[in-house]
Formats: sequence, C-alpha cells, structure tokens
Amino acid sequence: MTKSKNCDIRLKRRPSGLPRPDDFELVESPIPSASKGQVLVRNLFMSVDPYMRGRMSDRKSYVPPFQVGEVLQGGAIGRVVTGNDKFAAGTYVLSQAGWREWFVSDGADLVKVDPTVAPVQAYLGVLGMPGLTAYAGLIRVGGLKPEDRVFVSGAAGAVGSVAIQIARAKGCEIVVGSAGSDEKCTWLREIGASDAINYKNADLGEALGQTMPGGIDLYFENVGGRHLEAALSAMRLHGRILVCGMIDQYNSAEPTGPRNLMQMIAKRLTMHGFLVLDHFDLMNQFLDDMREWIAAGKMTWRETIVEGIENAPGAFIDLFHGANTGKMLVKLAEDEV
Amino acid sequence: MTKSKNCDIRLKRRPSGLPRPDDFELVESPIPSASKGQVLVRNLFMSVDPYMRGRMSDRKSYVPPFQVGEVLQGGAIGRVVTGNDKFAAGTYVLSQAGWREWFVSDGADLVKVDPTVAPVQAYLGVLGMPGLTAYAGLIRVGGLKPEDRVFVSGAAGAVGSVAIQIARAKGCEIVVGSAGSDEKCTWLREIGASDAINYKNADLGEALGQTMPGGIDLYFENVGGRHLEAALSAMRLHGRILVCGMIDQYNSAEPTGPRNLMQMIAKRLTMHGFLVLDHFDLMNQFLDDMREWIAAGKMTWRETIVEGIENAPGAFIDLFHGANTGKMLVKLAEDEV
Repeated sequence: MTKSKNCDIRLKRRPSGLPRPDDFELVESPIPSASKGQVLVRNLFMSVDPYMRGRMSDRKSYVPPFQVGEVLQGGAIGRVVTGNDKFAAGTYVLSQAGWREWFVSDGADLVKVDPTVAPVQAYLGVLGMPGLTAYAGLIRVGGLKPEDRVFVSGAAGAVGSVAIQIARAKGCEIVVGSAGSDEKCTWLREIGASDAINYKNADLGEALGQTMPGGIDLYFENVGGRHLEAALSAMRLHGRILVCGMIDQYNSAEPTGPRNLMQMIAKRLTMHGFLVLDHFDLMNQFLDDMREWIAAGKMTWRETIVEGIENAPGAFIDLFHGANTGKMLVKLAEDEV
Repeated sequence: MTKSKNCDIRLKRRPSGLPRPDDFELVESPIPSASKGQVLVRNLFMSVDPYMRGRMSDRKSYVPPFQVGEVLQGGAIGRVVTGNDKFAAGTYVLSQAGWREWFVSDGADLVKVDPTVAPVQAYLGVLGMPGLTAYAGLIRVGGLKPEDRVFVSGAAGAVGSVAIQIARAKGCEIVVGSAGSDEKCTWLREIGASDAINYKNADLGEALGQTMPGGIDLYFENVGGRHLEAALSAMRLHGRILVCGMIDQYNSAEPTGPRNLMQMIAKRLTMHGFLVLDHFDLMNQFLDDMREWIAAGKMTWRETIVEGIENAPGAFIDLFHGANTGKMLVKLAEDEV
C-alpha cells in the first residue's frame, strides 16, 4: 500500500458522553518533507487508550486538553523514512505523534525501540505505557507481596492483562480478573489468573466471594462504579486499592461514587491514585523484568488490531464497549522497508 | 445528689436512619455490690460518640454490634467507691462501662487517670480516644509536615478541634476547619484555625477556594458526602486524605459516594482509612505532647455537657444535629467524694 497523501484525525468537537464518530474528522494533506536535520517518520501503528477520553473534554487535568480542530495525539510506532545523524532510515521509533500517518521531527520526541524483543507494536502495549502502568502500580505504588490476594478489574485490557501476569510472576497465588465476556475470561485463565469473573453475567459481590473467599489484599482498579463497590466490600483488613483508571466513569455526565466508602474506615484501607507519568524512571527495570518474563513464558499478550487510520475513531470508541482483548491498536501502514 | 438506684440505658430496638428516643430504654436496678476483690465504681461522666451509631446496627464491623436488650457500652470516667488492692477508694478510672451509673469490676478493664493534668472528663475527649484519634491520624497515618495546608471537616467536634490545634502546634500555617454555625467558626479561629467555613451557609467549593487558594495537602475527613467531594476537587497534587469518620453517612439508608473520585488518579491522591484502635501504642507519646501543649496554651477545649443518664439518648442523637461544640458528655453524678 503506497499512499501519496498524509491523513490525520482531528477533534471536530468535544464529545458529550460516549464519543461518536462525527466528533472526529479525517483530514488529508500532502506528505510532509524533512528539512535539514529533521527526520520523516511513517507511523506503522498508533495507540488508542481510554485515558484519551479525558483529554477530549475541556477540563484542566494532568495533561492539557486536546484542542478542537487540532490533530489528536497519542502513542505511535513508526519507521524513519528520511533519517538524520541520530536516527538512520529504517529505525523504529516510539513517539507521541499518533493519529497521523506521517510526521517530521527533529528527533527530540523520538525513542528508538528494539524490534528483536517483540514485534514493534508491543512498545505501545505490553512493553510500553500500559505495561509500565501495571508494573509501577503493583510494584512501586502497591508494594506487591507474594502473599497478596490480588483482584484486577478490566483484566483483559492492555493494563489489566499485564497486571494479572506480573502478580503471578511475582508469586501471588490468588489472582482474579474481571472481564466482559466468557472468551476473555478463558484467556485470563490461560495467562495465569487463578480465576476470572465475567462481570456481565455475574453478581460481582457473589463472584468475588466464590473466587476469593478470603477477600482481597490488593485491588487494581481499572473500572470504577459497581466494581469499586464490590471490591470495597470484599477487601481484607488493611487492604490496598490502586486506582489506575475508572473506564466506567469516563463518559458519564453524572458519575456515581461508591456508596460504601465507609469500608475505608472499618477495614483501614488505603487507596492510591497513580499515573504512569510519575514512574518513567522505572522503565529500564521494567523492560529488564519483562524481557526475562517473556523469555520464561510468563508474559504473553494479545492485541486487537484495527486497520486504517480512518477507523481509529471507531477503535477508540470501541474501547468503551470492551471490544478489545489486550491492547487496542490501529495499524496505519505495512512495514514495507 | 444521692441515689439509691442504679440506672442504665439499653438498646430497645435497632434504629432505622437517625436514632430516636424510643430506640432506647432506661432501666432501674439496685446498686450492685462488690464481691471480694472487686471494686464498685460510680460513673461521673459518660461519653457519647458518633461511632456508636455503627454498633447499633446489626452489621459485622470492627467492633461487635450492640445487642438489643443489653446495656449499651462506651467510654466513662468514674470514681472507685469500694476499692481493692489495685484501686483504692477515691481513684478516678476510665472504663468502657458507660451508659450506666454504677458497676462492679475486677479491675482488668479499668485505667487510672491523673486528675491533676485536666478535669477528669477530659480523658473522654481531648486526652482520650477522640484526642488520640486526631493525633494518630495526623501524625502517624498522615505524616503531617509543617508545610502542609490542612483542611479539617467537622472541626468543632471532639476529634476535629484537636486536629486543628495539633496541626497548628506542629507548625502548619494554613489550617482551615468547617463547622455548622458561625459561633463554632468563631471558636475555631480562637483556637488557631487560620480560617473557618460555616458549611451550612457556604458553597464548600467556593469557600475552600477562598480560604485555601493554594489547595489542600492534607484533608482530615470527619463528615463525608459533599465535604469529601469539595475536598477532592480542592486537593493538591499528591495530597493525602485521612478518613476518620463520615458522620453525614451514618444514618443514611442509601449513602452517597463522591462523584469525583477520579480526582484520585489525576492528582495522584492517597486516601487512608484509619481507626484509633490500631494506634493505642501512641498513647504515652500522645499524653506527653498534650501535656506540653496544654501547658503552653496551644491546646484548649470545650465540652457540651448534658446532665443525667436519662438524657444520654438525646445527647447521642444530638451529635448528628451538631448540637455539640467540642466533646459531647453526659454527666451522671457530682464528684462528691
């Protein structure tokens, strides 16, 4: 597939509630050319992640909101077409210049990735920001111990599926995940979960009682809403809750809070909200551990790949329908070099 | 006042929502007499505390529920009338044998208190469980630092008013409390609060913005509900929330959760639920500090005293109407010895 145009996706208007396809706009432009010292990159894969929903609202947060009319941003893996001193043609690079097919850069925003560890798109998932999120959350923020009984919500997602496997690799025996289909639950058991809960056809409280009769020491929270309520009720004394995400709440005009937050007192619980951006210093340690776990067969992953930048908005929206198993990716081009 | 009868208060039925006077029953019985080795104690003051509401429901929690038909329990200060080897007649003792005028004991459940530091009923408040709660929460659980900007809800209560003064004694400059009347707010300023918010006639979010324009580092939570929502929105990055109580929620059949709990993530907040019973090992350090602060004029207190055991249920119920400034106590007898 050779294209003579560059396509990008822009925010046409701010979504209200669940984003819709016409909140986005596909714009064509000429393929840019690199000036002296610049590199031209062709993106191969771009990432769509739940956190991006927050940036689509006009709300002050930890990253500035996307601007209406501007090209969206996000993680992407590309290959250098026109090189410079630091990045030879053919180099694979990770950038935050997603939602576009081509871009030029002076290189300051590019990170080389090693294609021998795993297919390069893994640097958007298991070896990238989602994987590091799971790692930093469990290990640094949560102080994971082998005796912890761990519950992970949204466990078939990009972050959750890594969290399940890290907990197992670190020696935890009771590691339960929740997901939205029986197929996802089967996969969670395959990757080491001691049990899995299809939250769509289970009472979460009952299911936690059955799969974790001793209760939860460490809850890795990706979902919010009734997941959090059920987990609060099932927590053990002095348990820890790691709040990584609340995907249930992102599109809600009127989010709901857990009605049983008083469990925090009675059980002396600790709840930590965290963001991966505070933990990038762990990256080398994370990659060392991941290489070891991958080699030992303790870390596997799945990807849900949507083809074509024109389908990126749909892929993003589908995150909130749980359409992905593992990382949701958009493939922008064949790796033809 | 000499009485020939012993009166106690029993739980007649479990309250639904806000307790009502007829949930309680006053029962008369003969004054008990001490067998060999036992002591007979006459209670002078008994404590009513918000946490007791939880024990009136038939719910498993950190302390067993009260039983219908049984005498209620709680902190009391009494004086030994008939002594034994360890407790001479005239000794002041702290016990958990409240909600009754007289009782006998083998002494195992009694703690002597020193009447020279403060009037003995202070051991039910500023020098007792409520004071230690504030101390353990701020200092051990919260890791209070002099540069912290501290917000205390329910600040005119037994715990909150000590928390305000500990934060000031430890060097914090911005220490704001919320309370339910202008009179209470005036008192909070007198005891060192940098500012005070009458939550009954203020928008909490606006008031926090005015009194703590830089935001909150440490929130000492006694109230829950919209206090927690407003505080979550006003927290600074990496702030800490100490959940001591949620008096707004105790009588609610359908408690409400904070709708903005996603602030935990964006601001990387930590929320710690805690109970004083995990921190009794701090008691001596607490009393040492309190003696010093009292002597230096840095720790003062108020009490709201209701007379007569027959008025204990009303005093308890009035806690939820904010009728108390400082510790709510029931005076059971004059100290006539």
